[in-house]
Amino acid sequence: MIVGVVGGGQLGLMLAQAGDPLGIRFRFLDPSPDAPAGRVGELIVGDYGDASALARLAEGADAVTYEFENFPAEAAPAGVLPPAGALATSQDRLAEKELCNRLGLATAAFARVDSRDELEVAIERIGLPAMLKTRRLGYDGKGQAVVRDATDAESAWVELARGPLILEELVPFSRELSVLAVRGRDGETAFYGLAENTHRGGILRVSRAPAAPERHEQAARIALSLLNELEYVGVLAVELFDTEAGLLVNELAPRVHNSGHWTIEGAATSQFENHLRAILGLPLGGTEAVGSSVMVNLIGDTPPLERIVALPGAHVHLYGKAPRPGRKLGHVTLVDATEDDVAAMLELAASAEQGQPAPAVQSIR
Amino acid sequence: MIVGVVGGGQLGLMLAQAGDPLGIRFRFLDPSPDAPAGRVGELIVGDYGDASALARLAEGADAVTYEFENFPAEAAPAGVLPPAGALATSQDRLAEKELCNRLGLATAAFARVDSRDELEVAIERIGLPAMLKTRRLGYDGKGQAVVRDATDAESAWVELARGPLILEELVPFSRELSVLAVRGRDGETAFYGLAENTHRGGILRVSRAPAAPERHEQAARIALSLLNELEYVGVLAVELFDTEAGLLVNELAPRVHNSGHWTIEGAATSQFENHLRAILGLPLGGTEAVGSSVMVNLIGDTPPLERIVALPGAHVHLYGKAPRPGRKLGHVTLVDATEDDVAAMLELAASAEQGQPAPAVQSIR
Repeated sequence: MIVGVVGGGQLGLMLAQAGDPLGIRFRFLDPSPDAPAGRVGELIVGDYGDASALARLAEGADAVTYEFENFPAEAAPAGVLPPAGALATSQDRLAEKELCNRLGLATAAFARVDSRDELEVAIERIGLPAMLKTRRLGYDGKGQAVVRDATDAESAWVELARGPLILEELVPFSRELSVLAVRGRDGETAFYGLAENTHRGGILRVSRAPAAPERHEQAARIALSLLNELEYVGVLAVELFDTEAGLLVNELAPRVHNSGHWTIEGAATSQFENHLRAILGLPLGGTEAVGSSVMVNLIGDTPPLERIVALPGAHVHLYGKAPRPGRKLGHVTLVDATEDDVAAMLELAASAEQGQPAPAVQSIR
Repeated sequence: MIVGVVGGGQLGLMLAQAGDPLGIRFRFLDPSPDAPAGRVGELIVGDYGDASALARLAEGADAVTYEFENFPAEAAPAGVLPPAGALATSQDRLAEKELCNRLGLATAAFARVDSRDELEVAIERIGLPAMLKTRRLGYDGKGQAVVRDATDAESAWVELARGPLILEELVPFSRELSVLAVRGRDGETAFYGLAENTHRGGILRVSRAPAAPERHEQAARIALSLLNELEYVGVLAVELFDTEAGLLVNELAPRVHNSGHWTIEGAATSQFENHLRAILGLPLGGTEAVGSSVMVNLIGDTPPLERIVALPGAHVHLYGKAPRPGRKLGHVTLVDATEDDVAAMLELAASAEQGQPAPAVQSIR
């Protein structure tokens, strides 16, 4: 079996690592000849919108998918999974939220902002503080600005005036959660336990899972409603805010997701394998957790390997990317680890990111 | 980090699958250009005894190891791990058993057989029935014959007269077990739970682990004694017979081992990762089981993938080798599966091997 993947980053790499033992072979399309996934499959170097490269990607493939959603949905090969409609919706924050509200799923209040006047009207309606965001191409905290007063409104408008915008209510939430859901070609669905996510600088730092079991049922209901409406096939990540009024949908990602990396070691079947099973029409695998996992992203630079693997229960995933500030270079999942060991891992990651030597404190085995 | 591996079969493939996420890159030496490990590392095509190929394998490597022990120990690159002494010992059934007895570790009674006369003397001493085996190059039941009477003795002598032999007592045992042990460069040791192994036609079919907890302590003591005596670094597999008198050592394999494949999903750290940690001087990872595992080998041909993955808890590993009678093409590990699902998996494997369509009986999810 051959799977074509638009994008050759770490998500593509981990798809191939999950799929190779099943006999699946991979082909990736990425503009960079150094794309990490090139190590585990054929790499077609080309732009995401390059029709002939996309045709090569799809040629003879049993399924075509993507690990990166910021490419022109209209360029997506015929039969791409998750379906092009889901891709297009998730590329537009406004369409995403309108879909949620149409399905009766709560979101923060929002308003379309296509002009400076509309921004004023939106502020009037939503109130301040609020978030002004580009409707498209935002990721890792890019393409958004907090608006606290009229001055912010003006500067955010200038800063983000690259396309249509959306103003969103700044909701008070107790924590950020995400649910990973998967739907097969035959409509079979499965849901992983919730992850509780911590961001800093707009970048995911830590996911703990399974978390918030009391919210699991509501989260699964939200995800199921989206999966069915979108006639979805594959893994869908739904980012959620936990508030006093219950869960609000923040954002959708129509692909395997950083907050689901814990499933590699922490669940019966990983999100990567289940995504592949779904798009290839295979039965889905179990999503039950096999322990308590903490996933720590390695950002900017990586700690010494010998220090990480000295922590009991640590599973290291380095993507083979060159260090660069703010760049996701790898992650470590600790399964059933003590809070001391989790703290030690967080310190290792923070020290590496800040370019400092690894801290002396170390777990005693 | 770069690791050179003599041999590019499925054990090499799984070493690389375990090491790639740690940032380890691989180089393999194998006579076949189709060696499975070629998919995940650089493949040097050449004979195991080819000095220039071995030099290329070792060049700039942080460690050199092997996944196949039937190559000339004297050709092993300097500094190879596990050490050349352990390799040489394990290549000779007589040396292996003499080492055990020197360490006070029980084995079946045995006698050296270098001539037809010595065979008669050995039969006199050991009694019949007994096993006549080549001292070297035996694997998967090859290079051995049961001797029940004088006629067998003559035909076995003719059949096996390719080198020095050993006659072994045919011990009555209740089950075959194996223990996987690992020793780091600094002498740190760790032991996995025992596997209970079922062979047919001289080929391992099924391993269940962890098994025989009441024998764990004795097995770990046996393995520890061997690890220390051999100044061992890496994973060592010790095959054992469970008898009324306790455990007897049957055979050593100075490498990762088929009966340890369950550790990929069934233990905190896999045998493959721990072998790499050991030879690279990294701290060892936990060896505790994370459930109850049954590993089923796929021999000769493979069942339809959709039938295997329909079984809850099934983890598939296909090596990418062409079907051939008696050939190990992959394995499936079922974690915490029901006995019905295990039985269904055994049937799938047996039907595929016999060239029959997959049985209709299927697990209800």
